[in-house]
Formats: sequence, structure tokens, C-alpha cells
Amino acid sequence: MNAETTTVNVSTPGGDYPIHIGPGRLDQLHSSIPADATAIAIITTTVIGALYGARVRAALEGTGKRVIYVELPDGEAHKNSDTLNQIFDVLLQNRLDRKAVLVALGGGVVGDMVGFAAATYMRGIQFLQVPTTLLAQVDSSVGGKTAINHPLGKNMIGAFHQPVGVEIDTDVLETLPAREISAGLAEVIKYGMIIDADFFDWCEANMAALRALNPTAITYAIKRSCEIKAYVVSRDERESGLRAILNFGHTFGHAIEAGLGYGEWLHGEAVGCGMIQAAQLSQRALGLSADSVSRIAALVRASGCPDVPPALGTSRWVELMQVDKKAQDGTIRFVLLDRIGSARVQTVPADMLEAVLASA
Amino acid sequence: MNAETTTVNVSTPGGDYPIHIGPGRLDQLHSSIPADATAIAIITTTVIGALYGARVRAALEGTGKRVIYVELPDGEAHKNSDTLNQIFDVLLQNRLDRKAVLVALGGGVVGDMVGFAAATYMRGIQFLQVPTTLLAQVDSSVGGKTAINHPLGKNMIGAFHQPVGVEIDTDVLETLPAREISAGLAEVIKYGMIIDADFFDWCEANMAALRALNPTAITYAIKRSCEIKAYVVSRDERESGLRAILNFGHTFGHAIEAGLGYGEWLHGEAVGCGMIQAAQLSQRALGLSADSVSRIAALVRASGCPDVPPALGTSRWVELMQVDKKAQDGTIRFVLLDRIGSARVQTVPADMLEAVLASA
Repeated sequence: MNAETTTVNVSTPGGDYPIHIGPGRLDQLHSSIPADATAIAIITTTVIGALYGARVRAALEGTGKRVIYVELPDGEAHKNSDTLNQIFDVLLQNRLDRKAVLVALGGGVVGDMVGFAAATYMRGIQFLQVPTTLLAQVDSSVGGKTAINHPLGKNMIGAFHQPVGVEIDTDVLETLPAREISAGLAEVIKYGMIIDADFFDWCEANMAALRALNPTAITYAIKRSCEIKAYVVSRDERESGLRAILNFGHTFGHAIEAGLGYGEWLHGEAVGCGMIQAAQLSQRALGLSADSVSRIAALVRASGCPDVPPALGTSRWVELMQVDKKAQDGTIRFVLLDRIGSARVQTVPADMLEAVLASA
Repeated sequence: MNAETTTVNVSTPGGDYPIHIGPGRLDQLHSSIPADATAIAIITTTVIGALYGARVRAALEGTGKRVIYVELPDGEAHKNSDTLNQIFDVLLQNRLDRKAVLVALGGGVVGDMVGFAAATYMRGIQFLQVPTTLLAQVDSSVGGKTAINHPLGKNMIGAFHQPVGVEIDTDVLETLPAREISAGLAEVIKYGMIIDADFFDWCEANMAALRALNPTAITYAIKRSCEIKAYVVSRDERESGLRAILNFGHTFGHAIEAGLGYGEWLHGEAVGCGMIQAAQLSQRALGLSADSVSRIAALVRASGCPDVPPALGTSRWVELMQVDKKAQDGTIRFVLLDRIGSARVQTVPADMLEAVLASA
């Protein structure tokens, strides 16, 4: 292990595994492959493959094991059953068995879809997360949520399936567009809002350094985000309670993504804007202070995410939010704050929601 | 609970649940629906729906909950991702949420596919198994294995997902063709072969009564089969060891099914014939006695299953068996017997396998 590498350990009923965070991790991936693996399948996209495919293949061929390499089309539009079946075709054509390991090299789309392929190929095989976007590094690669989209809703088909490890190479952030950095920072500041007021303060003080990818700042933000996510999923792997608070801003955010068409806004951008709406709803429903709402809105703006929700119309907003996986019997359930650093899940009266949506 | 109903309890890391066995259970299904269910989706086939759909709807509407009813095309050929997506379409169109319960009414195809839909819809919802074939009652409905087929292999895509209960109505066996009874009996006698020599003896003595659906005999056979299966899966839910012995005869059987085209032989018929081949291989590899091989072959014949394997050719047999999920790195692993009532998983020298296949 390189001296510059930080490790965060995740412990869940579905498995314990390390998150390695540091520069140059892409060249060290062989260290995360289980010794009894019979083969390795690297699954990435054409875009990420062009940047890192050769390095990752070289690192994994260092294990001496058979390595399969697959590039899929890039983008959320391909996170569906057709692309999933393409993965299964390759795995079966190459006769990968139950002891094969999948390597998800890419952003959240790749991680979610490859994770779901691993969850269901021969009823479950091992996989390694190698997230290449800030958003995937601080959120989707940790905790074992896997899924594909359905035409009627995002992430509607999926499974809980923990990886054998998460390898976060901080160098890869250098090639990310600024917009993707902002989208990832939305999930970073979310952790402060829902559970850690000190981290919220730290994000306020360090937002410029984070957007400039200052190595010390960004490494700490990734580490702290992973620690908080690991804490939450260790207590509630299957989202029967606490874990739902990680969805702060997501009920609004998913409606934005679906309402505008997936890919129009980045997931993190929609969540950033959705957190402002959720804060406004928290003010009405739980008495979150006006100052806190202002600070939340200011921090979202400072991260570079949009702060003005699209004008979808109230009835369309509600219709889109009813598909949310937290809904029960058609009743939408929201993650709300009573103060910065403290979240809960609950329903709200329709008029409160409509008042927030009317300003959208 | 009706006095004529027998209960077998299943306990696994993934959940504890009862198996209810008895006449008239179809009219009692409401008792197995969790009180907090938000809706019920009955999923069956056109064939089973015509026989029992109305009764099952009536029983479940007795809960006062919203009931959705879906008929799918019948048969193994439809156990694929297209039909699975049809299920998801209906669930999403009807806005079923995470607290909805699926009811799998049908044979193994329905149980496996609806179970997999339940395993992956919104990352997992509850489901009830209502098996209507003898084979599904004694085997596939118990233990939480769910799957769909892929063009390159049977049950290749799936998950472990335990039901909330299994409701076995022994009356439904009356409408089953004799061939389906024989196919189910193959799995019944398998339990004696792998783990319970006394039950093997009992099956030898009672085969005529079983084929005639004598109520006392068939109920005991179902109960004892469910007990043994529950014992095995409670010790190894995820098939990392012991559970693999349930696949006795299946490596040959799956090759027969795939080699002839799914549906040509029933699954149980292929397993029945495959158990004779596995017994012959056990004789060569583990010294299983010639008398035991003869008794196994005679009991398969007495059950009404075919005892002569199709002439696929040795190289095709081997190719088909390499796709088996127990294979590791291309090496086929077999469930073999050292005596009736005692099984283990192991590899065999190629010449032993070829000698058995040469007689096919």
C-alpha cells in the first residue's frame, strides 16, 4: 500500500470491504482482486476506455489471470436492460464462472449497471468498483446499491450487492469537466447537511479549493464522504430506515431528471437543486431556520450546481415524485432537515409541497 | 389453520418462512399476505390462470387490499428477459411500491421468474410462492433460488431471494398430466439418494401409491422433500458448499435439456435420467455399488421418467456441461454418491466421464 493511500473500511451484513483513496490507484488494482478469482472482466465505456482502458488492463494482467475487456456505449441513456444483456452475452460467451470478478471502470452508470450484472450473473459474483467521476467516488460506488433504469422510472430494477472493494484514484478527477466536479460536490455537501454540521462548515470554508481540485481538500472531502456513507450503510444496508436519509434532495432531483429527460441535467446537478427545494420544504414542515435554508442554497450555488428548478408544473412534479421508491401507497415520503446535520424521513401535507413547487 | 394442513418451517439468513401443505390451500392464501402489504400482484400463466385464477383472486381480494392480476404466456421458452420486462411494466404501470407483494401462481417457470422479479423490483420486494406442479412443490418453490434463462444457458441470470411463504395445495395435483407427476417424483427420489436412505427405501415401497396420487403418500412425500430441502438451504443458503448436492443428476440433466432444446424433455425427466448417469459415474469415481446403481435406475424407471439418455455425442455433452454453474475455470464438478443417502461434489478424470457418456 502506497503511503499516499487512505483506507476507509465498510462493514455491512452483505460484506466487509476496503475503500482505497489516493493518486495512482489505477495502477494498483491487481491488489484488490481476490486470489481465487478465475477470470477478470473489465467493463467500461468507450469514453472512459479511451482514457484509462490500457492502464487498467495492464494493471490487472499483472495478476496473471485471464482478463476480458468490454466497452459499452457511454451515458445514462444506456443504463437499461439492453446494455445489461450485452454484458451477460459477453460473460457467457467467454464462459466466465461463479468465481470470476467484474471490474466496473467508470462513473455511476457503469458502477450501477456492472454491479447489477454481478448481483445477478449466476445468482451473484464478485465485483470491484473503480469509480472515475467524483460523484461515483463519493456516493454510488459505496454501499452496494446497484440498478438499471426502466422507461417508467430510474433505478427501478436492481439489487443490493456489495463490491469486494472500491478503488478511488484521485488523479482521474483532473480529466473531468468542471460540470461533473460540481455535480459530485452536490453529494459531498449533502453529507454535511444530513448528518455532520462540522463537515458542512468545512465545505463552506473550502469550496473554492474543492472546485480547484486542491489535492489535500479533495482527498479529505472524498474520505469524509465515504466515511459517512459507510457509517450509514453499515447501520442500514437495505434502506429499511436510516439509509433513506442519503436520499436528501433526491425526490425532487429524480423528478427533475425524469421531467427534463435523463441526461439533460447531471444527477448531481438535479440533486443539488433538489436539496434547496427539500430545505424549503423542511422550513415549512419542520421549522428549519431561514438562515439554514439560505446557507444550503448558497453552498449549492458555490458548488456550481443550478439553484433554480425547472418549471415542470405542480401536477407533473407530483406525478413524477409518486414513482419515487420511498413512496408507499401513492404517498410521497421526503427526507427533511430539522437543522443542518440532522435529517428524517416523513410525509408532508399536500399544501406545503405545493407551496414549494409553486415557486419552482 | 386447517387441521389437514401440515407446516414445515424454513430458516435461512435471508429470511424465515412457513411452507403450508394440504388440500384447499388456494382458498386460504390471504393468511400468508403480510399485514402491511400495500398491494398484491398475482402473476400466473394463461394455462394455470384458466384453472385457478378466479379462486386465487377471490381468496386474495379477501384481504381488502388492491389486487392486480397478470397472465403470462405458458412454458419454459418464456422464462426470459422479455417476459421479465413485461412483469416490470405491469408493476410500474400500476405503481406498485416497495411494500407490494407478488404472488407466483404456477410451476417452476413462474416461481423462478416471479421470484426474480421480486428480487430486483425496486431492489427487492416480498413474494409468495404458490406452486402448482409437483416439481415446484417439492423443489423450486423452497429455498429462494430465482432466475431466468439466457440463450446461452438455463437459469444463468438470477438471485437468491426468499419468499414470505410457500402455499402448497395438494388438490391441484389432480389436474396435472401423469408426465408432470413423474417429473416431480424424480426430485422427490433425489432427496433419498443424496441424504436420506430411509426415505429412498420408503419411495421404493410406495412408488405406485405416489404415482396414483394417494393423498397420504403424496402429502408425506411433499413434506419430507420440503423438510430435507429446508434442512439443506438452512445450512447453505447461497450454495457455497452443502447446497450443491441438491444438484444431483442436474449437470447431466441440464445438458439434456439444453442439448435437445428446452421443453423437449421436462426438467424432472432430464434430472431423472441424469441421476442414473450420475450414479454410473459415482460407481466409477467413488465405488458406489452396482446394486445401488441398479436400485437408482429401477426407481427412476418406476417413477415413470425416461432412463435412456439422448445420443448427443461425447463432445457436445462435455461442451453443454461446461456451462454448468458449478464449473470452475472450465472444469466440470459433479454431485456424486459414495452410497445411497450420501453425496459429495467433486471433479472426475475425463476418461471416467467419457466412459459414462459413451454408453449414452
